[in-house]
Amino acid sequence: MSQRGRRTQEWDVRASTLARNTHNLIRSIVENLTVEPNPSKPFIALSVGDPTTFGNLNPPEQVLQAVRESIELHTSRGYGPAKGHQEAREAVAEYSAHQGNVTAEDVILCSGCSHAIELVISVLADSGQNILVPKPGFMIYKTLAEGLGIVIKYYNLLPDKQWMVDLDDLENQIDEDTAAIIVINPSNPCGSVYNKDHLNDILDIASRNRVPIIADEIYEHFVFSGNEFTAISSLSKDVPVLTCSGLTKRFLVPGWRLGWIIIHDRHNILGKEVRNGLANLATRILGPSTLIQRALPAILKYTPQSFFDEVILFIENQAKMAYEELLRAPGLRPIMPQGAMYMMIEIKISHFPEFKNELQFVERMVSEQSVFCLPGRCFEYPNFMRIVLTVPEDILREACQRLVIFCKEHIDIGEKCKEIDNNIIPVTNETEFICDN
Amino acid sequence: MSQRGRRTQEWDVRASTLARNTHNLIRSIVENLTVEPNPSKPFIALSVGDPTTFGNLNPPEQVLQAVRESIELHTSRGYGPAKGHQEAREAVAEYSAHQGNVTAEDVILCSGCSHAIELVISVLADSGQNILVPKPGFMIYKTLAEGLGIVIKYYNLLPDKQWMVDLDDLENQIDEDTAAIIVINPSNPCGSVYNKDHLNDILDIASRNRVPIIADEIYEHFVFSGNEFTAISSLSKDVPVLTCSGLTKRFLVPGWRLGWIIIHDRHNILGKEVRNGLANLATRILGPSTLIQRALPAILKYTPQSFFDEVILFIENQAKMAYEELLRAPGLRPIMPQGAMYMMIEIKISHFPEFKNELQFVERMVSEQSVFCLPGRCFEYPNFMRIVLTVPEDILREACQRLVIFCKEHIDIGEKCKEIDNNIIPVTNETEFICDN
Repeated sequence: MSQRGRRTQEWDVRASTLARNTHNLIRSIVENLTVEPNPSKPFIALSVGDPTTFGNLNPPEQVLQAVRESIELHTSRGYGPAKGHQEAREAVAEYSAHQGNVTAEDVILCSGCSHAIELVISVLADSGQNILVPKPGFMIYKTLAEGLGIVIKYYNLLPDKQWMVDLDDLENQIDEDTAAIIVINPSNPCGSVYNKDHLNDILDIASRNRVPIIADEIYEHFVFSGNEFTAISSLSKDVPVLTCSGLTKRFLVPGWRLGWIIIHDRHNILGKEVRNGLANLATRILGPSTLIQRALPAILKYTPQSFFDEVILFIENQAKMAYEELLRAPGLRPIMPQGAMYMMIEIKISHFPEFKNELQFVERMVSEQSVFCLPGRCFEYPNFMRIVLTVPEDILREACQRLVIFCKEHIDIGEKCKEIDNNIIPVTNETEFICDN
Repeated sequence: MSQRGRRTQEWDVRASTLARNTHNLIRSIVENLTVEPNPSKPFIALSVGDPTTFGNLNPPEQVLQAVRESIELHTSRGYGPAKGHQEAREAVAEYSAHQGNVTAEDVILCSGCSHAIELVISVLADSGQNILVPKPGFMIYKTLAEGLGIVIKYYNLLPDKQWMVDLDDLENQIDEDTAAIIVINPSNPCGSVYNKDHLNDILDIASRNRVPIIADEIYEHFVFSGNEFTAISSLSKDVPVLTCSGLTKRFLVPGWRLGWIIIHDRHNILGKEVRNGLANLATRILGPSTLIQRALPAILKYTPQSFFDEVILFIENQAKMAYEELLRAPGLRPIMPQGAMYMMIEIKISHFPEFKNELQFVERMVSEQSVFCLPGRCFEYPNFMRIVLTVPEDILREACQRLVIFCKEHIDIGEKCKEIDNNIIPVTNETEFICDN
């Protein structure tokens, strides 16, 4: 028996720092909700950013057919190269021509966009460095970074300016340990879409501070009429941009876990080291299923534009409908999105004296109205909530109407009358009656 | 313009420590080989541990049919829970009953077995701690651990005892920073299969030193006639075992990236912390494709035993044939495997005066005979090479015969005659002629 062993009286197996510091904010907030829906009303979850949940949105036939054909290929079963099959990477390069000059060498296939984000954060930032994340913003960055000891710093988006970046705040957050700026466009959770001027302003800050950009463009092309999507990489003169995207949302197959990274580095600033670093990291788990990889060229080539147009039109109409409905809710301020598939709604929490914060508001919404919206703290943004626009029209309308009822029931009467006086909410028989009293 | 920015004259973007310290040993050795095959002989790669490469081994019809049906389900497209769909985890629990009492709560689905191994290493070991890895052994552990600052320590396997663990060496390697012992059974690259007594000896060491075990059982059930596979977890009285497996090898779909972790912790030593830690880590990239997850219950239920039996019988016959052929190669010592799909071959390098090491040997094999075997250094085990047994019979036979010719051409004549005298290699007209001279 060894003298060098670590023989102890008791077992003591601890989870690692990485495991203990990996938190999924949304998941822990949602899992800690203990309220039960009102049994007399069907439960409506407006919380899940999965467009396939309700079965009303389905991938196009071309996508399914491509996978049906892939199954029969004996080359769709073996290990792929760590960065993905050449043909699949070529197809992604061609599909991504709007991002700038992209070749297969610039593409790394990943197991979903989360994996893409994990790799780009991991390759650029060391423990102790920081990355800048928009607030409000999707919090997968926090989940992925903090376990590795990478610090998250926030820069503000401006709700009164359609969630544009507070440029002064962004530049103020940069310090000598800043490894990357994350830009989410179109935005989850805001649904904002940045124009070229604004993207150029962001690039200028990155350029003069020599900070690379991580572009989360998983909602690329998801823009409503009158807006235009521009890939930030297409405007960059010198700033290296690592763009993350995938099939996930646009092709309505988030569960298939097919994401990618595209390396934009026209002036070879990242050099071999970062490219090799990404290639090294890709060898850890070997990317997405080859069954989908083999289908990818056909998926990207044959999915018709009409499919994308129909999906976007549906979401845009949903956004308009929900916005109109929610204008009637006293104490709420919906902010009309320009793209993606979400809407942020401000809760004027001081107008609801029963609730200390938006978490209590959304919990009571569940117990009384059986509608669950994601509280703003899931995006580090209290006093707001996010709703998903991809649910079927009648369900979304019903949910919004219940929200209106809920607000009417809980708003401070004085505040409600002020809103009516200010023409923020329309006068109805019911409100007249309350305010007259 | 900010005074706090990190404005510098020049761009200086470095890859992170994690990226720089993530190396895939096999990949870097193979990619650095610069020799060209002999153009007059067809190239034969005996290096790739992918049973689907040559197209002679295919998944059973039941597996393909399960995925064909999954494609048509609208529930096969959305995000799954981070640990995997409940039905799929239940199916894995049932399939893994030989490992002990397993419920769906003990199962975490992963994006391939590499991802499973990444999670179990990441949850148990912190930077500065060490994990014990068999030598020779598959080196994904090193790839995954070193980037995170986790130290790899080796314990020896004994080639003269069918690659059993050198138990004294194993126990001697344990120190107070040892976070886990990795046991690969059946073994890659050795093809060894441990019996119950030996597994109990390993468990005893783990138990008295209070070290959990990571069981890499991706080759579970891959055992030749006369051998029996025992899951180490099924014998454990107290030692927590995290078992990694998947569809990969047994169902001949390595590219589909469907692996899993099973938590065995009868005495609740890991507690909530490690279980929650694994659940946290699973939220980083959200597991395998739901397309395959939805097919998993049918895959595990309907694949007939006859399919597995036929594959194993084929590999066993290949092992016997290669072994017989290679006995005729002077200066080589093939070690007959008991399972998995590989054979290790000792190169008595001092008998080949032209070559300093096994790397030079395998390189020259490529340039003269167009046969590529993986050099032992890919498994931290010089003077050996590994061949894959799943290639078609005629190709494997041809490759072995070329190896025999190569050895005859390059062996030191004195050594060859000694082998003949000792009846290690049979006398032929040709050898008689050389030795007589």
